[in-house]
Amino acid sequence: MPIKPISSRDNSLYKELKLLAASSQARRKEGRTLLDGVHLCESYLLQVGKPLLCIVGETAMRNDEVATILRRCDDLSAQTILLPDHLFNALSQVENGIDILFLIETPQLAQPPCLSRSAVLLDRVQDPGNFGSIVRSAAAAGIEQVFCSAGTTFAWSPKVMRAGMGAHFLLAIYEHVDLADLLERTDIPVVATSSHAQQRIYDLDLTQPVAWLFGHEGQGVADGLLECATHRVTIPHLGAIESLNVAASAAVCFFEQVRQRMTHYPP
Amino acid sequence: MPIKPISSRDNSLYKELKLLAASSQARRKEGRTLLDGVHLCESYLLQVGKPLLCIVGETAMRNDEVATILRRCDDLSAQTILLPDHLFNALSQVENGIDILFLIETPQLAQPPCLSRSAVLLDRVQDPGNFGSIVRSAAAAGIEQVFCSAGTTFAWSPKVMRAGMGAHFLLAIYEHVDLADLLERTDIPVVATSSHAQQRIYDLDLTQPVAWLFGHEGQGVADGLLECATHRVTIPHLGAIESLNVAASAAVCFFEQVRQRMTHYPP
Repeated sequence: MPIKPISSRDNSLYKELKLLAASSQARRKEGRTLLDGVHLCESYLLQVGKPLLCIVGETAMRNDEVATILRRCDDLSAQTILLPDHLFNALSQVENGIDILFLIETPQLAQPPCLSRSAVLLDRVQDPGNFGSIVRSAAAAGIEQVFCSAGTTFAWSPKVMRAGMGAHFLLAIYEHVDLADLLERTDIPVVATSSHAQQRIYDLDLTQPVAWLFGHEGQGVADGLLECATHRVTIPHLGAIESLNVAASAAVCFFEQVRQRMTHYPP
Repeated sequence: MPIKPISSRDNSLYKELKLLAASSQARRKEGRTLLDGVHLCESYLLQVGKPLLCIVGETAMRNDEVATILRRCDDLSAQTILLPDHLFNALSQVENGIDILFLIETPQLAQPPCLSRSAVLLDRVQDPGNFGSIVRSAAAAGIEQVFCSAGTTFAWSPKVMRAGMGAHFLLAIYEHVDLADLLERTDIPVVATSSHAQQRIYDLDLTQPVAWLFGHEGQGVADGLLECATHRVTIPHLGAIESLNVAASAAVCFFEQVRQRMTHYPP
């Protein structure tokens, strides 16, 4: 499929892409988003497949990694759009990156009827970097599902996806979930961290699947939800600081589970 | 000491504060920075003591937590400046926060001659949120020192300090450190994580003090430095993702050490 050049900022497709790049509301409404940079585009090709569109800047055309991606897009009959660098830069938030974007559809998944597989539940997590780091750690730890309450940052924004480093394509992510309702239909333990809890995370058996519950950066998990957790555990501290960043906390939890599983089921 | 109102944006002290708020270069040059919000100001009073100046917005004067901070500043003979809200807002990056700032001196510490206490070494870590999360986790894990290479984000920027949540005041932070040189003078093991390493972090004895080495978000630890580490370990993964965010990785390492120490030296 021939590469299609666009050179005018008044081109209707370009204007549509620019709106998606700038507006979180447009991304939600259209059910589409942009993947920024070589790594995310490679991950998408590997884990999902054909993008709606590949968009590349003129200078980036000379890059070897980009050439490989363009060949793969061509194999999949995905259209590639070529932009002058200045038009490309208006679509990208990555400075000094390699100028390639994918336009993709954000998956619209039907929520499963109950919690039965290893999962993360996010109650109003605000920061895109935290959200991205949590899904990245979750995917690395072999967790399969992410459930987000209303009020959690949008899972498919460019910032979240950059921080997620491709984890989005390995997990099933459900948004606008009524977590209280979901917690009534769970077949597995639900574990929340709380600095007020007595039980140490190291003393909880994590060799079986669990659902992890994390909350808002300032306020933590809402009280009503915290009561629905089957276990409240603390990450013990040795220093005089009250709590960890939510993404750091999540990483400690997920990899304590990995450690226990590897010890319990040696390879 | 009476509270001093400033109402003009042309006031020379206000102009000086505004420069510090806006310019990382000015903060480095002056050796001064601003702490933003109730939590950081409270931590500073508790861990360090008297600020150079307390700055408060008119509306925030009615807040109880602010009133407590102002009383403490008065006890310590620290000057408080009162600003109309619109002047205060031009100094602060926190939206919807409580309008209080401290002006403080950034500690200028003489670098210790060798590595002999538990420490974190940061090689060109770029992201303020990552840096802040790492020092927060380090302080919670009882680590005492942080050594930063040239090219690491400035430790005392408002963004880093917000993410650090007061950890800055519990740790000795050394900037512009020649890490290769420091690694030649170490009395303790130096541990770096690497996805190419064979040894699992869970199999390394971490009951004694170690220095942890973490690197640039994209490039990792520079090869020359990685070779100087006494141990290279991997955080084993169960999922199909290559690596963790550097702050997530640091949290897993620090709290694996906490776990081992708590197991080895039960309370």
